[in-house]
Amino acid sequence: MKNANLFDLPQVLGAEEFFEPLLPDCGVLIERIISTGQATPEGEWYDQERDEWVALLQGEADLSYEDGRFLKLKAGDWVFIPAHEKHRVEKTSSDPPCIWLAVHGRLGRGLVAKA
Amino acid sequence: MKNANLFDLPQVLGAEEFFEPLLPDCGVLIERIISTGQATPEGEWYDQERDEWVALLQGEADLSYEDGRFLKLKAGDWVFIPAHEKHRVEKTSSDPPCIWLAVHGRLGRGLVAKA
Repeated sequence: MKNANLFDLPQVLGAEEFFEPLLPDCGVLIERIISTGQATPEGEWYDQERDEWVALLQGEADLSYEDGRFLKLKAGDWVFIPAHEKHRVEKTSSDPPCIWLAVHGRLGRGLVAKA
Repeated sequence: MKNANLFDLPQVLGAEEFFEPLLPDCGVLIERIISTGQATPEGEWYDQERDEWVALLQGEADLSYEDGRFLKLKAGDWVFIPAHEKHRVEKTSSDPPCIWLAVHGRLGRGLVAKA
């Protein structure tokens, strides 16, 4: 049996982002995320316990960091976000939807100390 | 500075497959692989120490397993290959080249005992 194709979209996409773990999380989580225009709520930051490697496979999105960096991502772009590096998703395209592939785990040279 | 885009190909692709680690290997290796028609040599199998999650992002490829399974992969298809599950790449497209994204590490519920 074949796994669902990364580029196949669910028949119905709700108002929320769609998070789909591709394997059970045994310390490393590999997940697909589909965004259709959502952004991180105003004034909020992602502050994650684990490092994240994340690629945008389809669509366009803007990321920003607490230190002021701002990145415009297009399909094929990827970033490495060490644990506790605060970041936000400023914008995601809805046509086409953003398809993200994210790997969460201890990926870097060591977890960044929590501020 | 932006990382190289996953869909951008090196200007020159040699006769060998192109392996590109996207982060230092600290127990989990995330790498891009570009194949242009290569296959696993006749009679050989991959028998890996670590689990592998691998997606084909572009191109077409055929995989086979020691137990007789055979998979035709197209862009967006992915497979999970537990450690020591013997497999071969039977065929890869060269036009377009295959772009693989692989994650190697302890990803499953425990390493499969070595036969």
